[in-house]
Amino acid sequence: MKIQEVWKNLEGDLAAVEACIRDHLRCRAPLVSEVGFHLLRGGGKRIRPLLLLLSARACGYSGDRHYLLAGIIEYIHTASLLHDDVVDDAAVRRGRTAANRVWGNQASILVGDYLYSKALFLAVREQNQRIMDVLSEATTVMSEGEVLQLSQIGNLDLSEEEYYEVITYKTAVLISAACHLGAILAGAPAGVCRRMVDYGRKVGIAFQLIDDALDYSAEERKLGKKVGKDLGEGKVTLPLIHAARAATPAERGRLRGILADGGDRAGVEFAFDLVDRHGGVDYTLSRARELIQEAKGELEELRPSPARDALVAVSDFIYQREL
Amino acid sequence: MKIQEVWKNLEGDLAAVEACIRDHLRCRAPLVSEVGFHLLRGGGKRIRPLLLLLSARACGYSGDRHYLLAGIIEYIHTASLLHDDVVDDAAVRRGRTAANRVWGNQASILVGDYLYSKALFLAVREQNQRIMDVLSEATTVMSEGEVLQLSQIGNLDLSEEEYYEVITYKTAVLISAACHLGAILAGAPAGVCRRMVDYGRKVGIAFQLIDDALDYSAEERKLGKKVGKDLGEGKVTLPLIHAARAATPAERGRLRGILADGGDRAGVEFAFDLVDRHGGVDYTLSRARELIQEAKGELEELRPSPARDALVAVSDFIYQREL
Repeated sequence: MKIQEVWKNLEGDLAAVEACIRDHLRCRAPLVSEVGFHLLRGGGKRIRPLLLLLSARACGYSGDRHYLLAGIIEYIHTASLLHDDVVDDAAVRRGRTAANRVWGNQASILVGDYLYSKALFLAVREQNQRIMDVLSEATTVMSEGEVLQLSQIGNLDLSEEEYYEVITYKTAVLISAACHLGAILAGAPAGVCRRMVDYGRKVGIAFQLIDDALDYSAEERKLGKKVGKDLGEGKVTLPLIHAARAATPAERGRLRGILADGGDRAGVEFAFDLVDRHGGVDYTLSRARELIQEAKGELEELRPSPARDALVAVSDFIYQREL
Repeated sequence: MKIQEVWKNLEGDLAAVEACIRDHLRCRAPLVSEVGFHLLRGGGKRIRPLLLLLSARACGYSGDRHYLLAGIIEYIHTASLLHDDVVDDAAVRRGRTAANRVWGNQASILVGDYLYSKALFLAVREQNQRIMDVLSEATTVMSEGEVLQLSQIGNLDLSEEEYYEVITYKTAVLISAACHLGAILAGAPAGVCRRMVDYGRKVGIAFQLIDDALDYSAEERKLGKKVGKDLGEGKVTLPLIHAARAATPAERGRLRGILADGGDRAGVEFAFDLVDRHGGVDYTLSRARELIQEAKGELEELRPSPARDALVAVSDFIYQREL
């Protein structure tokens, strides 16, 4: 099955999720709807809702509560994007003059808080303890991941293992929760739930690895796409970790300086060249490929179904999305 | 009963709440403990935990789960303070040069998110649907209140009624939830729960009214305390609403300008003088006094007990706290 087929087959389901997202944005403060719509209408690929819907169906769910849960997961994701934007903007300011985004920042923080509260409020109304257990743990771990990432800004000594920890918390745990919630809705046995948790964690880590690889990709750069965002923000990701392991002490010293102040043009060139010479992007992509393979392995225990095939297609799409 | 007696009698209980607050701050990211401790150790009066503990006891609760719930309420309050600080700092920047608090802002946003998630995570583990209903609704309404307040910045046409709506949402609902949770823990009948909800809402609104009155108080100003914060941030509160109602069109025009840009020294003097001439502070304090009286009336339905007497003392303390 191709990803285009998946989107097409789920058109109606995704429209039902969009309706949930839209309906629950109504609130006493019109600003919420404005900012929320702007962001949520922008869309993105709705990977998390898609995974939740497919996980539920692949585990045999035939009801319709998965639409709301998919919307809830997207609210949580959007809330975290809103807060990330403020945090990252602040970091970017270190190197360059930032546009005055004061009103934007205020609205981003408060609307993020609203979306996050509203997500949990809607989930609580489902009156399902297991759903609340999974969601409240995921959001807590996610916020730990964000703080961990912040405290590791500029730390070139971050090990590959520590890096995996950060991206598991900040990205993979919510994606894993989406898959887990699908299985819970379906009343799947414990063994199947565990598979879906592992599947979600693995595609989630792979998802972030691809993101981090693309940010150093020479091809992307040639195509005129924005790269080097992580370097500019002082975020140490796997392509750089891999390159730094092979670098000389002098090169590592220079990298530290670039991470600390964002680097000038020559500094950025130097870092990109170093990552390139040591194959940092390829190394990162190969880790992602392995994880996608492992993730697909988890699905083999599920009963064959169109939804399971679709999950396989989504896994491949995550690897190939922008390569 | 005097408030000093209340603090003394509850010394052990409040220490148990502090232990909860401290124990659950431990997290994989040391930055959380650092920022969290710094803020939570600063203390404040712990009015919300105090109200929760006393409400539980006044409704006949004899267990010990109220310590954790009191800690949870304080986490939520602290998270909202952290985010408020970032939002308000941004607003303050409009008028003056602000210190570079970039790292501070990033940490404030993310640690706020963590405290908030952790609070709901801990609450979910209590496996009590009614507790989750109350908490998740309170936090959602609270965040609506924050957004409402932001969208009303600089709006001199805010009516007294709209103002009450904003402060009910942003402040009173969480205080009311604290009292309600105490009653729920005690298994109080619906009628008693309603009384505690109303009691909490009324002292909560009074609490914010006093805050807003003090920010325009001439006595406070003479004592060298910081006043005029709301004016500087463009927040329209009751002392100003009351004065603006009696002001001439020209005066109102000048006030609008001051709200828009924070005002110069003469502008601030003008606004303070206008509030003074029209008795804006006294008007606000008299509204608070009425609400405290009404709140105490709600308590009369409770069985007499030392905890009920203590709630009366806390109500009076809220009115007198800094007068």
